[in-house]
Amino acid sequence: MQVSLPSKQKQLPKLAVDVMGADFGPQQIIAGVRLALETNASRIGRLFLVGDENILNPIVQAEGLSRESLIEVVHASQVIAMDEKPLQTLKQKKDASMFRAIDLVKQGAAQSVLSCGNTGSLMAGSTLKLRTIPGVERPALASIIPTRTHQFVLIDVGANPNSTVKHLVHNAILGAYFAKAVLGKKAPRVGLLTIGTEEGKGNELVQQTHDCLKQLNGEYLNYSGLIEGFDLFEDCVDVVVCGGFVGNILLKTCESLFLNLKEFLKQEFERTYLRKLGATLASGVFKSMRKQFSPDKFSGAPLLGLNGWVFKSHGSSKAEAIASALNMSLNCLELYDLQAISSAIEMANSLLNLDEKG
Amino acid sequence: MQVSLPSKQKQLPKLAVDVMGADFGPQQIIAGVRLALETNASRIGRLFLVGDENILNPIVQAEGLSRESLIEVVHASQVIAMDEKPLQTLKQKKDASMFRAIDLVKQGAAQSVLSCGNTGSLMAGSTLKLRTIPGVERPALASIIPTRTHQFVLIDVGANPNSTVKHLVHNAILGAYFAKAVLGKKAPRVGLLTIGTEEGKGNELVQQTHDCLKQLNGEYLNYSGLIEGFDLFEDCVDVVVCGGFVGNILLKTCESLFLNLKEFLKQEFERTYLRKLGATLASGVFKSMRKQFSPDKFSGAPLLGLNGWVFKSHGSSKAEAIASALNMSLNCLELYDLQAISSAIEMANSLLNLDEKG
Repeated sequence: MQVSLPSKQKQLPKLAVDVMGADFGPQQIIAGVRLALETNASRIGRLFLVGDENILNPIVQAEGLSRESLIEVVHASQVIAMDEKPLQTLKQKKDASMFRAIDLVKQGAAQSVLSCGNTGSLMAGSTLKLRTIPGVERPALASIIPTRTHQFVLIDVGANPNSTVKHLVHNAILGAYFAKAVLGKKAPRVGLLTIGTEEGKGNELVQQTHDCLKQLNGEYLNYSGLIEGFDLFEDCVDVVVCGGFVGNILLKTCESLFLNLKEFLKQEFERTYLRKLGATLASGVFKSMRKQFSPDKFSGAPLLGLNGWVFKSHGSSKAEAIASALNMSLNCLELYDLQAISSAIEMANSLLNLDEKG
Repeated sequence: MQVSLPSKQKQLPKLAVDVMGADFGPQQIIAGVRLALETNASRIGRLFLVGDENILNPIVQAEGLSRESLIEVVHASQVIAMDEKPLQTLKQKKDASMFRAIDLVKQGAAQSVLSCGNTGSLMAGSTLKLRTIPGVERPALASIIPTRTHQFVLIDVGANPNSTVKHLVHNAILGAYFAKAVLGKKAPRVGLLTIGTEEGKGNELVQQTHDCLKQLNGEYLNYSGLIEGFDLFEDCVDVVVCGGFVGNILLKTCESLFLNLKEFLKQEFERTYLRKLGATLASGVFKSMRKQFSPDKFSGAPLLGLNGWVFKSHGSSKAEAIASALNMSLNCLELYDLQAISSAIEMANSLLNLDEKG
């Protein structure tokens, strides 16, 4: 494969990819990297593939990437399994591909890391190694949720199950920056998830956070106010802010409901000859559905608030999802640096006295 | 309409229905009552229709119910609007149909009340008037969620946004009793909703509740353990226990996602002539979908933990939903009395020292 190198290669972002620990093995990850290079090579400074070189090199060769100058295989002797305990992996698997990939960001050799591996280890490892940006206490995991008309960012989907007012305010800022980069919105509308949108409803955490976000509204944040579950799939806001406990349950429940309905439709359409015929005639509908609601389209949930970009893709990601996650990484890296986010956070902390409120 | 009165009429349950305050007016409610009587008259001791008699009587007559001996119209001069503040309605609308209907339960004239009106007023009014059963601090709102293969009870869906360990343990017991009555399960499987099912994950509230529910497992409760969002629409448990904040967001989000997908399919199937033809051939699929996931099928969310049965139906409930909610009320009233639930709660409180833990 021939790639024309751009002249300003030094300034282009460098990405580290943890190639091990995914459900379908390194093959799909490397195929995804090849896909990403097909359209995005000119945007990439370097691409580190981290994992066991004895396994990686033959695949890199088979994918026709061995002569690709952007690619660099970085050896790591260990792999973290999906069911391992995060804290244990930190102690016992210092040479794990995931941690070596994070190390590349820590050392400044790369600006982002992508992994399909053990989420707990990725969160623990990157938080420990990269540390949060000044002013941020806890990182937050964001996810892009597709609807029939648009997409929205849900943050936090599980990094921090014990959220405080400060954490939620930071989630709002981090989520807004992420939405700018990936949804192409100049001033993303931010909503705070609660029950009942009347003033005074919900719980104390929500009420206090709501007061803070109202103060930030304007220059710092385009805050739309409180939002209920009913509104989630309507085009009301671009960023839905919540704590990690609620967000994780919500994200997984939506996936569960979606799969349940898909399976229901599949079985019902196969029940009679006429229905099968109907499904054949309307096959475009199912194609649209797969396309619109595909998890591959916005694969790559970023762990935000760290000194470096960390992206988590589904363990079961295939090549297309990997390519899409790398594309998302590039969008984030190109649009702004972490310094801008850090400044916004510090501004909010000082305006709202959040350091005292805790 | 001729109804043969059963001999043991005195022992049959008496139901109060708030006929005012629903989106489509008293007409649909009374039509629903007529529907319910068509199949369930022999199970009912008396049916109080509470509302403005000047409005009610003509409708009762038009529905052919004026000679129905089970029916008794109870006059109430006021109506609570959907957007009124609960606490204000308690002060200013003492003669509201909803509160008069609850009063019938308080006085012992009826054992259950059904309303499609203002949820906040119903919760505040019934909690204030009926009080919680001994041992219970806060009532919990339950809802039945349909999936492609089964139904499960979600509790609490919004009565109590600040749940403690004690509240969640009580939700588990209340939800299990409700599932026995409406899902016909002898020992409903109860799961506690969390993020990550490994021991030690989630937050402190979940971990402590999990420990308590494990102790209750066996004689008092069929506790299946922790459950994640991913499992919600799989047939893993019959009762999903959570706090009112999470539950309310979850319920509303599921409705929002379902409507979004339904609208997506509708628009996609109408996009071309061939697709429209396909939809016509497979029209049975959509009929099945409406039937399986219809909110009417299990209309009637009970507010559990009070000295009396309180059921809330959607404000937009039509006749079928009302009939189904009345049927649900009868199932609950017939299966066991509140004394049984109260005993189970007190047993749990004493076994787990919950009164001290708070």
